[in-house]
Amino acid sequence: MDPMTRIEAGLNLAFTRTHAPPAPPLLAAAMRHAVFPRGARVRPRLCLAVAAACGDDHPEAADAAACAIEFLHCASLVHDDLPCFDDAATRRGKPSVHAAYGAPLAVLAGDALIVLAFQNLAWGAIATPARLGPLVITVAQAVGMPAGIAAGQAWESETKPDLSVYQRAKTGALFSAATVAGAIAAGADPQPWRQLGECLGEAYQIADDLLDAVSSPEDAGKPVGQDSALDRPSAVRAYGIDGALALLESLARDAAESIPDCLGAVPLRALIAQEAKRLVPKSLSKVAA
Amino acid sequence: MDPMTRIEAGLNLAFTRTHAPPAPPLLAAAMRHAVFPRGARVRPRLCLAVAAACGDDHPEAADAAACAIEFLHCASLVHDDLPCFDDAATRRGKPSVHAAYGAPLAVLAGDALIVLAFQNLAWGAIATPARLGPLVITVAQAVGMPAGIAAGQAWESETKPDLSVYQRAKTGALFSAATVAGAIAAGADPQPWRQLGECLGEAYQIADDLLDAVSSPEDAGKPVGQDSALDRPSAVRAYGIDGALALLESLARDAAESIPDCLGAVPLRALIAQEAKRLVPKSLSKVAA
Repeated sequence: MDPMTRIEAGLNLAFTRTHAPPAPPLLAAAMRHAVFPRGARVRPRLCLAVAAACGDDHPEAADAAACAIEFLHCASLVHDDLPCFDDAATRRGKPSVHAAYGAPLAVLAGDALIVLAFQNLAWGAIATPARLGPLVITVAQAVGMPAGIAAGQAWESETKPDLSVYQRAKTGALFSAATVAGAIAAGADPQPWRQLGECLGEAYQIADDLLDAVSSPEDAGKPVGQDSALDRPSAVRAYGIDGALALLESLARDAAESIPDCLGAVPLRALIAQEAKRLVPKSLSKVAA
Repeated sequence: MDPMTRIEAGLNLAFTRTHAPPAPPLLAAAMRHAVFPRGARVRPRLCLAVAAACGDDHPEAADAAACAIEFLHCASLVHDDLPCFDDAATRRGKPSVHAAYGAPLAVLAGDALIVLAFQNLAWGAIATPARLGPLVITVAQAVGMPAGIAAGQAWESETKPDLSVYQRAKTGALFSAATVAGAIAAGADPQPWRQLGECLGEAYQIADDLLDAVSSPEDAGKPVGQDSALDRPSAVRAYGIDGALALLESLARDAAESIPDCLGAVPLRALIAQEAKRLVPKSLSKVAA
């Protein structure tokens, strides 16, 4: 089964397992709204690609890790879009969860997606219980304190955020977790895979800052110009557009070079090259080419 | 070590582990504000009492389960108090988290406490990895979909909530999880302990409805009269004060009778009798006596 099919099947299976009666229908719908239709699914694809490179001896563990990471990513977007944060009316080109279902169900959808992520890990590691602890800890570190997504988001409430700490937490952490969890799910040593996730995470944060600075809302599928309007730290504000573009390219090179020698290295490098191209906002891709 | 000391030590240890640099200071403070100073800690005490009754062969697993349950309880209170839900300015007699730190940090504190709960389970079950999966699934079911706290809360957004489904999810589920997780953490069969948690959970929800209906904000430590003001389902609204009181007493009896024959039965029954007394709001305790 190709990776995208595995991911969509895993996400659907988790919903099937938890959206049976007596589930409240609106919350179930809000959770599905947050996860479907799909975005690029880049984090779970990265997770599965690393698992494949490590032999993928228990695909259900890798699927669970990939889907847990996607659920957490979606949860973070739902809460990020809330009126008390970005107050974004659109996401992936459709109404954000709070715009469609109201703030209370958006808060609860995020909460329930976080819970589902960990539940999904436990289901997927039933046959390999020794991998569950490291998977839970890896994923929790990527989204909690002191340096996961929630911590990253919280730097926006501090008076003196450190740009690199903020970005590493808000975006980088879940990318690192995607590569590390992919290796753990396949029973491999995760250390050689950490740098790949870190480089890609930093590249994605910079790409997101570029998107916010130079794209139209239509191209981005969400409101733009938020970093400047909300006075948030951003690579574009720190280094300018050319500086941010150069950094993005250098990080994509570092990511490709960090891949350890393994059977799956070639498709992984291809995935990274493809993503590096996709990451440059359309309006800049001619300049960058 | 007595149970309350174990619980406070476990909660503090989890914070020590996750609030080191580069943790954003305000989020760390908001999370502590949500958890300290302590309330009755009745759920984690129940969890430890069941673990003790089952032999408590790995106290660190029981401590982790008890603290995970308390973190999740506190997280639910933080989100429940948000402006988009109850908009409560006080909790446990002091400012609620959003009143003290603002809504963004309150959302993030709840999120990070949910994550910390699962992370804590993984740390505590390192020596007993086969217990981690069942613990994660038990706890996740109590707070997620289809019948955990988030599901319960979501029934408030539905036009036709079923009172018993709503209350079982919003309050009962975490009590059931407390007894079931206590047994799992001690390596015992959790089935004989489920009914105890269910009865106590229902009793607590009714006690909470009574508190909301008849207490002063000073006695309750939080705003009262919310069920009626927000047109929420409530046992008092469904059965009247006398009916609710009678139900509460009958549930406490059922809980005590459900305890299986075991070494720890006597202290457990004493804990339940003490709680059953504490649960009746002050203004009604003379009537009930």
